[in-house]
Amino acid sequence: MANKMMGIGASAGVAVAKVYILDEQPIVIPQDTAKDVTAELANVSQAITKAKADLENLQKIAQEKLGAEKAAIFEAHASILEDPALTEEFETLIKTQSYNGAKAIGEVAEKYIAMFSAMEDDYFRERAADVKDVTDRLIRYILNLPVADLASIAEEVIIVAEDLTPSQTAQLNPAYVKGFACNVGGRTSHAAIMARSLEIPAVLGLKTILSAVSATDVLAMDGATGEIEINPQKTDVWTKKAETFKKEKAELEQFKTKKTVTKDGFDGFVLEGNIGSPKDVAAVLENGGEGIGLFRSEFLYMDNDHFPTEEEQFEAYKQVVTDMQGKVTIIRTLDIGGDKKLSYFKFPEEMNPFLGYRAIRFTLDRKDIFKDQIRALLRASAFGPVGIMFPMIATVDEFKTAKQFTLDCKAELEKAGVAVGKDLQIGMMVEIPAAAVLADQFAKYADFFSVGTNDLIQYSMAADRMSEHVTYLYQPYNPAILKLLKLTIDGAHKHGKWAGMCGEMAGEPEAVPLLMGLGLDAYSMSATSITKARSIMAKLTRKETAELANKALECDTTDEVLALVHKLMQTK
Amino acid sequence: MANKMMGIGASAGVAVAKVYILDEQPIVIPQDTAKDVTAELANVSQAITKAKADLENLQKIAQEKLGAEKAAIFEAHASILEDPALTEEFETLIKTQSYNGAKAIGEVAEKYIAMFSAMEDDYFRERAADVKDVTDRLIRYILNLPVADLASIAEEVIIVAEDLTPSQTAQLNPAYVKGFACNVGGRTSHAAIMARSLEIPAVLGLKTILSAVSATDVLAMDGATGEIEINPQKTDVWTKKAETFKKEKAELEQFKTKKTVTKDGFDGFVLEGNIGSPKDVAAVLENGGEGIGLFRSEFLYMDNDHFPTEEEQFEAYKQVVTDMQGKVTIIRTLDIGGDKKLSYFKFPEEMNPFLGYRAIRFTLDRKDIFKDQIRALLRASAFGPVGIMFPMIATVDEFKTAKQFTLDCKAELEKAGVAVGKDLQIGMMVEIPAAAVLADQFAKYADFFSVGTNDLIQYSMAADRMSEHVTYLYQPYNPAILKLLKLTIDGAHKHGKWAGMCGEMAGEPEAVPLLMGLGLDAYSMSATSITKARSIMAKLTRKETAELANKALECDTTDEVLALVHKLMQTK
Repeated sequence: MANKMMGIGASAGVAVAKVYILDEQPIVIPQDTAKDVTAELANVSQAITKAKADLENLQKIAQEKLGAEKAAIFEAHASILEDPALTEEFETLIKTQSYNGAKAIGEVAEKYIAMFSAMEDDYFRERAADVKDVTDRLIRYILNLPVADLASIAEEVIIVAEDLTPSQTAQLNPAYVKGFACNVGGRTSHAAIMARSLEIPAVLGLKTILSAVSATDVLAMDGATGEIEINPQKTDVWTKKAETFKKEKAELEQFKTKKTVTKDGFDGFVLEGNIGSPKDVAAVLENGGEGIGLFRSEFLYMDNDHFPTEEEQFEAYKQVVTDMQGKVTIIRTLDIGGDKKLSYFKFPEEMNPFLGYRAIRFTLDRKDIFKDQIRALLRASAFGPVGIMFPMIATVDEFKTAKQFTLDCKAELEKAGVAVGKDLQIGMMVEIPAAAVLADQFAKYADFFSVGTNDLIQYSMAADRMSEHVTYLYQPYNPAILKLLKLTIDGAHKHGKWAGMCGEMAGEPEAVPLLMGLGLDAYSMSATSITKARSIMAKLTRKETAELANKALECDTTDEVLALVHKLMQTK
Repeated sequence: MANKMMGIGASAGVAVAKVYILDEQPIVIPQDTAKDVTAELANVSQAITKAKADLENLQKIAQEKLGAEKAAIFEAHASILEDPALTEEFETLIKTQSYNGAKAIGEVAEKYIAMFSAMEDDYFRERAADVKDVTDRLIRYILNLPVADLASIAEEVIIVAEDLTPSQTAQLNPAYVKGFACNVGGRTSHAAIMARSLEIPAVLGLKTILSAVSATDVLAMDGATGEIEINPQKTDVWTKKAETFKKEKAELEQFKTKKTVTKDGFDGFVLEGNIGSPKDVAAVLENGGEGIGLFRSEFLYMDNDHFPTEEEQFEAYKQVVTDMQGKVTIIRTLDIGGDKKLSYFKFPEEMNPFLGYRAIRFTLDRKDIFKDQIRALLRASAFGPVGIMFPMIATVDEFKTAKQFTLDCKAELEKAGVAVGKDLQIGMMVEIPAAAVLADQFAKYADFFSVGTNDLIQYSMAADRMSEHVTYLYQPYNPAILKLLKLTIDGAHKHGKWAGMCGEMAGEPEAVPLLMGLGLDAYSMSATSITKARSIMAKLTRKETAELANKALECDTTDEVLALVHKLMQTK
């Protein structure tokens, strides 16, 4: 039997240790109706109280081990339990449909999980895991099922599980838990993000690891490559891997405080962080981010029961701008609709929501809602350098309309004596093919471009990356995509503007050499990818990356492009 | 009160005549359950028999007045009634749900109408009207409601109605019916197509015309511009309009037999027809079409209860190729999925079907189904020049795979001694932005390109043209679209290949000058648009259209582009 497996490398690091199998008793929700509605309501209420206490405790543990930023997840979990909309939904099902408590919670949870899971944005997909984590906990209490206690592990192990919830991951003690390997999950799941913070190696998406190991096995794993070996034969191979990892990690650590400079001494490239809420700023600064290239403003709208007021928004934007201490913050205006819904506003039903009423199409149609955001952004710009960025711009008319609206709001504020920043920039996302193709014209009016790769690739290939039937068409390295990037960057430069990227691609080690060669100015990514990108830039000259990019633009296929990148990087 | 209205010009021509109001008693379907199931079944059966007799009669009338091609619609209607799947659905609802006959027919009809209406392709959207026409007739018989007898009109009138069904339109006698004006409908509805064949002016989509006129009014209408005047004041204006139209019509008539030549004597542009089934060939030849630029093969799959066999397909393709008498026929391989479903095959549910599993993505995944079609196409190519065209190509890999599969099938046929045409061309649709951007690379492998404008615009602008919320983004004249066309055409020419267009845009009077200027080689359109396009080409030199296109490429917006076109055409 094969003792090697490949999964998704979700948290870098090499580990060899005994297996610890986390095989939780699965939840089976009883289908019988509630005999005593009052008792059932009391059960649910008790479970909620117990869960809240647990979460408080977990938050304390996490705060000590992971810091305030990561511990905030448990505040978010507690706020799910405190959301009256949710608990009322449980109660209604119990009262009106005579559901038992577990079934009521299960059904409400399923609805929200389905909604979040279908979303394009990682930030919101993670919410599905949060809801599941919290509601599973409630159901386990109601059904008297044991809740695993991973905090008490006191020998060196690698945990093998179907999945780890955020709350389970937060309990892990890196002194004993040397790594974990799960059947499901990917790089952007909460467990993966926490594992990287805890510096615990993790390999996810292994599909069959749980049934492949037994309690007496020893596991070796490489959390960068996703490699797994059960009862490894040549242990020296793994020792060497561990040493290499350690060396590389120390090297990357240094890049947190280094300047971004290419091998030929060029310091014009900027490495920035993407954030979803003010609490993410700390990680960007800690990793040496030179700005925020994308602050998604959706959290203000989605974690809410009403359109956020100008004041509520102003506070959040101001906090980020202030925390960034003079470094630039690019804030994207509301990118709602499509797959992102609001509980307090009904979007129209459309056959192809990704090609529908969303983002700037919605806000230009609803200027009342747009105005609150624009005013809040303008006011926040008085506290530091801000860029306002419009999502889903398809035509020059749309951009000009949105820009003029912003300038009108600015004039209104200034007339009323409200301060607005002097170095405000007004730019746009390039995520629709028409915008990339016409970048030369757009650059006359926009102060900057920022490429959103997920959508740009999706539309350019006419392939929904959420549809499993066409995932093979999600090709960031397709020469057609590179040509669209070239058009965007050249268009910006022709008019003295700058071009950035805030999609996943910006931080990919294989993309950085190509993007340098195309002349991309700003690279905005997950905070944890910044040092790696900086280290790659330090190894490359602009001349060799320009040659690489020119050759890549002449390629026919993704594979040919990647082969060129790999060939160049092998020499580094 | 305003006595002028604007609608959609659906059939050119000018008319002034008395109003004839067709105000049919609306169908109100009774909701009571069938008391006597046997009697209800007999009612339905009688209505079907009566309707079949009617349709036979209508077909005879239509054959005399409109010719065999247009009369075929009533064969299609009869075949709807003969479809056992449909009649069984009626019966099942009556037997198992105790539906009354009218309700059963209404419910089944609604299902099919909704399905066809949601489709992207005009060819199939028209089917919704067919189903409604036939089932409304059945329901009227069952409910003893009068069916309008338009054939008996014997004075000069303009009919004003909510809508005209195909069967009503076919009964119109052009000697008396000088035109019609309807609240609903558009250029591609069956009524519009028939009106053009009958040469009866028609203005559709007027929304409120029915309530705006009374029986004593006189109406003046321009079926080209969509202009309507109730009780016109200055009749000389309308007399002049009528004369101009007559003159222009005579001029266009001449272009049926003329060669396609530009004002500067260039005869390299080709004007072709789009067809949906073999019966459409006659109109293409009659209008001087120089080939078939798009033969949609979907009708073989959708008007069927199984995947059509190689033999069934071969017969249809052979007929078209033979009828075209040596002129080229470009046949598009199956473009199914997305919004086009099959009754005998279940496509996966997807959140954004336009970005999903469809067309070449389906056929490359199901080579068993693909092979029957490719073999049939190859065999038909022995009877005249054939181009095989793959839809929805996004990557060079896909095209190379599809082409190699075709060549393998060809080798197999030749080995078995089956004849295959010598001048077979293998090309692709350019309807995905990535393909347009990478045309230079694709042209190394493809014999030709044909731009599908509907999809190309939809993906390039990230706007579903079926969604009413973003219709303003369906902009064929956006400079971004023109740039993509330029990339496509230049890419083809660089490698000595030709580029065509088979989308709606190819026949638009405003598009032809731009496309000439961009150097497009082949223009495939509705048969009835060919003479107009040819007359436009005769008025323009390549030099002036090239200058127009170059200026248009530098524009920011659609409006600016159209202003340039209008300025040039005003001088012609």
